[in-house]
Amino acid sequence: MRLVTTVEELRAWRREAPPTLGFVPTMGALHEGHLDLVRFARSQNAAVVASVFVNPLQFGAGEDLARYPRDLAGDREKLAANGVDLLFAPAVEEIYPQGFTTTIDVGPVGESFEGAVRPGHFRGVATVVGKLLHLVAPQRLYIGQKDAQQSAVLRKLVHDLAYDCGVTIVPTVRESDGLAMSSRNLYLDERERRAAPSLHRMLRRFVELLKAGTPFEIARTEAANVLEAPGTLDYLACVDAESFAPLAALRENCFVIAAARFGNTRLLDNVWLPQ
Amino acid sequence: MRLVTTVEELRAWRREAPPTLGFVPTMGALHEGHLDLVRFARSQNAAVVASVFVNPLQFGAGEDLARYPRDLAGDREKLAANGVDLLFAPAVEEIYPQGFTTTIDVGPVGESFEGAVRPGHFRGVATVVGKLLHLVAPQRLYIGQKDAQQSAVLRKLVHDLAYDCGVTIVPTVRESDGLAMSSRNLYLDERERRAAPSLHRMLRRFVELLKAGTPFEIARTEAANVLEAPGTLDYLACVDAESFAPLAALRENCFVIAAARFGNTRLLDNVWLPQ
Repeated sequence: MRLVTTVEELRAWRREAPPTLGFVPTMGALHEGHLDLVRFARSQNAAVVASVFVNPLQFGAGEDLARYPRDLAGDREKLAANGVDLLFAPAVEEIYPQGFTTTIDVGPVGESFEGAVRPGHFRGVATVVGKLLHLVAPQRLYIGQKDAQQSAVLRKLVHDLAYDCGVTIVPTVRESDGLAMSSRNLYLDERERRAAPSLHRMLRRFVELLKAGTPFEIARTEAANVLEAPGTLDYLACVDAESFAPLAALRENCFVIAAARFGNTRLLDNVWLPQ
Repeated sequence: MRLVTTVEELRAWRREAPPTLGFVPTMGALHEGHLDLVRFARSQNAAVVASVFVNPLQFGAGEDLARYPRDLAGDREKLAANGVDLLFAPAVEEIYPQGFTTTIDVGPVGESFEGAVRPGHFRGVATVVGKLLHLVAPQRLYIGQKDAQQSAVLRKLVHDLAYDCGVTIVPTVRESDGLAMSSRNLYLDERERRAAPSLHRMLRRFVELLKAGTPFEIARTEAANVLEAPGTLDYLACVDAESFAPLAALRENCFVIAAARFGNTRLLDNVWLPQ
């Protein structure tokens, strides 16, 4: 595996790259969820590029940019072991040189839920991925389902602006107790970690109740009881998978989404119901 | 010359296109200025794509979208005669299908001058060109110098988001009396048309006075007197060619820019001082 840190080196490599290229953008601190994206990309393309870039544009003031976990040496080893051909790990000023002022905004799909809690977050996500797609020029982009709204934002970006690139949403990888893998799980203390899998149990309970015909608000209230202390619920909702518009019932191609706080850590999870 | 109106046809053509491709985006109503862009592109590339698309996203409420001059048959003939290989002339819903919500904003360079008079205008320009660059995937984009701020916005777009595409700014083509060619010149009545060349004379006078050492505000006031009735001045200024930040003196790589109203028609012109 080759490691490059500059746009110039990346472009030089790209000119000689194989005809099908899969791309896995990450913020590092890699876990099995990321590596599953890599393996998906590996199975479908002649070459795979991964990026590790903690994107300041998607962190708000007072968020965890400075303490976001970083482990480039470990990430590099994991990516090499899983068949990545090129790792792009640029410094911040390589992506945002002095005077950088351009942003991409996908609109309403990025304004509710995580976008409401973290104003500007999805503008930051769309801008960096929009730029990375120009640099890497892949045939296909691989995104984890765990961040459901991010996956909707990036599908919207690629669709609206007609990037010549497919998007594959890869199912969430979970710990044996059901907790969705996330770099932020590292922040949890022992008690929070024990309670965290109840987030996914809550989602499954909500879906089960709705499928059984329980009225929406009753199902939501009953399911919310499944969340264990010290977890506190931010939202439990059902949304259209493309627009992220809230729904008052299950329907074709929807996400059931939830966010909860465990101490200072917000965790997200979802269930996707394509049919 | 081939004419296509859908993204699908354009993409099919693009897959078989020659290795170097020049792109000239236009809003139609073509004049010699546009055709000069085409000839520049023709001289530097194996193939040339032009687009004719009156972009609703760059017109504000109450602007001239509905009455903007349209002449696809005439445009088609002119482009073919000047060596364009492919003309892309999509309907509005081909570029902005139902549910389209994404925008690209290049920031301050698009907020002063024309951006202040026409809020959202340059966001519309950046968004449509950002999308067209994905569809056409040219090696080089050709833009007229006449719309100086637009040229700065598009250079910023390509630079900040790292489009793999060069940008060439082509000098303004003028009528024999010095009036910069513009599709909007068609709106001028006889008296307005007679006065319109004074816009360029005013710019040249301003530059001449500044070069002679006249203090900036005195030079501006004196030069403004060159504009003939019924023209009324919107602005006469000196700006950095990259950032469009106002300057209080000539300096390397600046534009001297002006806008004036002739009846209901706003005309723009500029002098570029690269050194």
